[in-house]
Amino acid sequence: MSAYDDLMRFQRSTEALAKVAGRLNWDQETMMPRGAADQRGEESAALESVLHARRTDAKIGDWLSAIDDSSLDAAGQANMRLIRHSYERNKKMPADLAAEIARLCSVSQGVWAEARANDDFAAFAPTLETVIDLKRQEGAALADGGDPYDALIDDYEPDCTAAELAQMFDAMRPGLVDLRAAVLDAPKPKALNHEFDENKQMGLARKLAKTFGYDMARGRVDKAVHPFSSGSGNDVRITTRTAGRDPFNCIYSTIHEVGHGAYEQNVDQAHLFTPVGGGVSMGVHESQSRIYENQLGRSRAFCGWLYKQMVKKFGDFGIPDAEAFYKTVNRVHNGYIRTEADEVQYNLHIMMRFDLERALIQGDLEVADLEGAWNDRFKADFGYDVDKASNGVLQDVHWPVGLLGYFPTYSLGNVYAGCLHEALRADIPDLDAQLSKGDTSGATTWLRDKVQVHGGLMRPREVIAQAIGGEPSEAPLMAYLKAKFSDLYGFS
Amino acid sequence: MSAYDDLMRFQRSTEALAKVAGRLNWDQETMMPRGAADQRGEESAALESVLHARRTDAKIGDWLSAIDDSSLDAAGQANMRLIRHSYERNKKMPADLAAEIARLCSVSQGVWAEARANDDFAAFAPTLETVIDLKRQEGAALADGGDPYDALIDDYEPDCTAAELAQMFDAMRPGLVDLRAAVLDAPKPKALNHEFDENKQMGLARKLAKTFGYDMARGRVDKAVHPFSSGSGNDVRITTRTAGRDPFNCIYSTIHEVGHGAYEQNVDQAHLFTPVGGGVSMGVHESQSRIYENQLGRSRAFCGWLYKQMVKKFGDFGIPDAEAFYKTVNRVHNGYIRTEADEVQYNLHIMMRFDLERALIQGDLEVADLEGAWNDRFKADFGYDVDKASNGVLQDVHWPVGLLGYFPTYSLGNVYAGCLHEALRADIPDLDAQLSKGDTSGATTWLRDKVQVHGGLMRPREVIAQAIGGEPSEAPLMAYLKAKFSDLYGFS
Repeated sequence: MSAYDDLMRFQRSTEALAKVAGRLNWDQETMMPRGAADQRGEESAALESVLHARRTDAKIGDWLSAIDDSSLDAAGQANMRLIRHSYERNKKMPADLAAEIARLCSVSQGVWAEARANDDFAAFAPTLETVIDLKRQEGAALADGGDPYDALIDDYEPDCTAAELAQMFDAMRPGLVDLRAAVLDAPKPKALNHEFDENKQMGLARKLAKTFGYDMARGRVDKAVHPFSSGSGNDVRITTRTAGRDPFNCIYSTIHEVGHGAYEQNVDQAHLFTPVGGGVSMGVHESQSRIYENQLGRSRAFCGWLYKQMVKKFGDFGIPDAEAFYKTVNRVHNGYIRTEADEVQYNLHIMMRFDLERALIQGDLEVADLEGAWNDRFKADFGYDVDKASNGVLQDVHWPVGLLGYFPTYSLGNVYAGCLHEALRADIPDLDAQLSKGDTSGATTWLRDKVQVHGGLMRPREVIAQAIGGEPSEAPLMAYLKAKFSDLYGFS
Repeated sequence: MSAYDDLMRFQRSTEALAKVAGRLNWDQETMMPRGAADQRGEESAALESVLHARRTDAKIGDWLSAIDDSSLDAAGQANMRLIRHSYERNKKMPADLAAEIARLCSVSQGVWAEARANDDFAAFAPTLETVIDLKRQEGAALADGGDPYDALIDDYEPDCTAAELAQMFDAMRPGLVDLRAAVLDAPKPKALNHEFDENKQMGLARKLAKTFGYDMARGRVDKAVHPFSSGSGNDVRITTRTAGRDPFNCIYSTIHEVGHGAYEQNVDQAHLFTPVGGGVSMGVHESQSRIYENQLGRSRAFCGWLYKQMVKKFGDFGIPDAEAFYKTVNRVHNGYIRTEADEVQYNLHIMMRFDLERALIQGDLEVADLEGAWNDRFKADFGYDVDKASNGVLQDVHWPVGLLGYFPTYSLGNVYAGCLHEALRADIPDLDAQLSKGDTSGATTWLRDKVQVHGGLMRPREVIAQAIGGEPSEAPLMAYLKAKFSDLYGFS
């Protein structure tokens, strides 16, 4: 056995245990009895502790020193790069700080939830101050003198810097603000006003999952409060939710999560239980969920097919034809909440979070000034005042649980989805004809072969670049949004 | 920190990881997509390997040497006894042998399933020979010169010997054979002949679980091919199954599993995550499931209440009154299959397995002669020939997966249930009045306080002895069966 074989055998068990931890999280959100929460906390902590010990095991350092990367094939070199990166990151992170962050974030979520229920940012501010302080320390420890916020982003989007993101976002923002204003000036399409049976919604969700190529033999669809995708390889589960008067929530949550789930299912099986055997970054992951949900699922062609399925399932629900349905699906209206935002406004929500959290970590903004900064920025981009903290700075769970550096990957995913969509349309001229029959296989096969199958073999941006045959930029997304919504809302 | 505190902190994480492994098994039987089986095998193996390393960690030996048991309280002493016993057992077991058994048993289940489907014992015999050979080696390694079968029993029923069991079973067998003959000579009660909606059966199952004191906030009821109970403490899940024409399968599987589940839920919470924090043995566990299912659930009083629930749920299903229903519930008829056997015949199925597996391990019977020995014994006790291997020696999964020494705990559980039932009736004279109103709280509270709450504080037989205020024996069970079935079938 070579040192590389030994390392990979050790790594294989670590990956297997990580999958168990993922399954435990899925169970917690879907199946776990509510009275089991405290016990589960201790079970998860025990497993995390085993994983942490394995990930920082000095044996890994010995193996890494002993292995000559250049003697390995492409997958071997990519695995080495990922293991080396993770091991060095873990070594830089002080154990006390990691433990303190884990302890605080398990508490702070509860404090945040109560503050949000009471619309009282001041009640959460002291806790958030500690979170930010610890995350600043973490960023500094990981950055080795570099930008601490870059070091945090790296956990979600390796090889990506805040400066690059800022340049991209700043280029998008004025266009999005203008587009938003133009859309909201135009007459609004009809909204849904009907009750949709929730069991039938779940039936439709499972049908849509299959329609988008999700392999039900290696996955399942359940309900959860907040939809998510979980797992990798041959056990990838997704969740969705239902609301009687809003079937689009169920439908588009499902298609979104199928994008994530199919990505994990479609990584080359040769890489199972190795570091390259999963999605390469949050941004690339989000590009898959977004292109499935938006560029494919909210297209005129697919909406035509979906309208027929809805009528078959629910009967007359007050929308007269496919074109009206397409407009209703893509209805844009004012709103405070990121997770409910449409394609036009979503990235504006992300950009303000990116700027605010970047300033928090870099020390240019203090928690005491955060609510004011949030409300000012919201007014500037959306044109009206935040009415309460739960509709503003307290709406997202990310900061309370220490996820700083995560938000920008949502918009990066949208940008990547725009690039992939442009290349996909060029490669499959009759895509709309396929989608109008509910046939997504042309698109999903293209995405599988161009993106998903590679897992972590390349760096995130490289995955997109080789798929589209060029450098990714925000231009295709902006062009797509402008074309789609000027057509929909009848302006130019 | 004392050495005991250190040991218990280490043990606490091991117990937490063991609970994760249990949850993974539950998932595998209820939720896991079928395409995930191979991947799951590797995940489970990784977790088992972590558990094995912890359970044989030399640090435990150091702590055990350093601790003076007599300085500890009762729970501390019981924990020390259990940890010492487990550690010494694991040290005696050769690692290679354990690995070989694990590897073989994961394969042999598939070979057995195929042989059973083809009613071909010869196709399974070579595999079973290897299983028996390895289990003989295991028994010999653990027995330290003692009886290897006793050493195997010890895994399921500590402090119990085959000789004691044989004496007990031999005392029961003639009476059971006679009782069976007398019952089958009498006119048969009416059987069910109706289709029962399976969703309604599940609704009734959940109602019955609550009726028997199962805490739904710390558990859940799902379907599985083979009903089981899983977990301990505050996350104890049970499963049941449904068949349209046989609602008793669902009803009594549920009540049976509730007996197991309630036992685990009711162990004193002070013992959570410690060795004494679960059911003390398989025999005592089975005493709970059996007394819930049979002495309570199949009593005339409870059947009277259950009949009303059934009529309310399913309408007229062809049984005219509560007394006829009671007779139908307790209907005895010929059959080959252990898991479908009634109270009269069940223990006869167990005793033959006990005698055969004991002879296999002790070298008095070879696999080549097993099918013949099975069929001869079946004819002797049941009076007719086994028609095919799937109705005979191939019917149970236990031997294929290496569970030898497990079977006798089923009948020991029935014996213990008989003892507890006698003491319970003496303590609660109006038990039938309670049960006839669907009120099991008198019985289940008595069982909770006398048996369940203690977990592993005492030795298994001691738990029963202190609950009934005397030494357990088979006499109460035999008297109960004779009285119940001579009354039901009108003989004396």
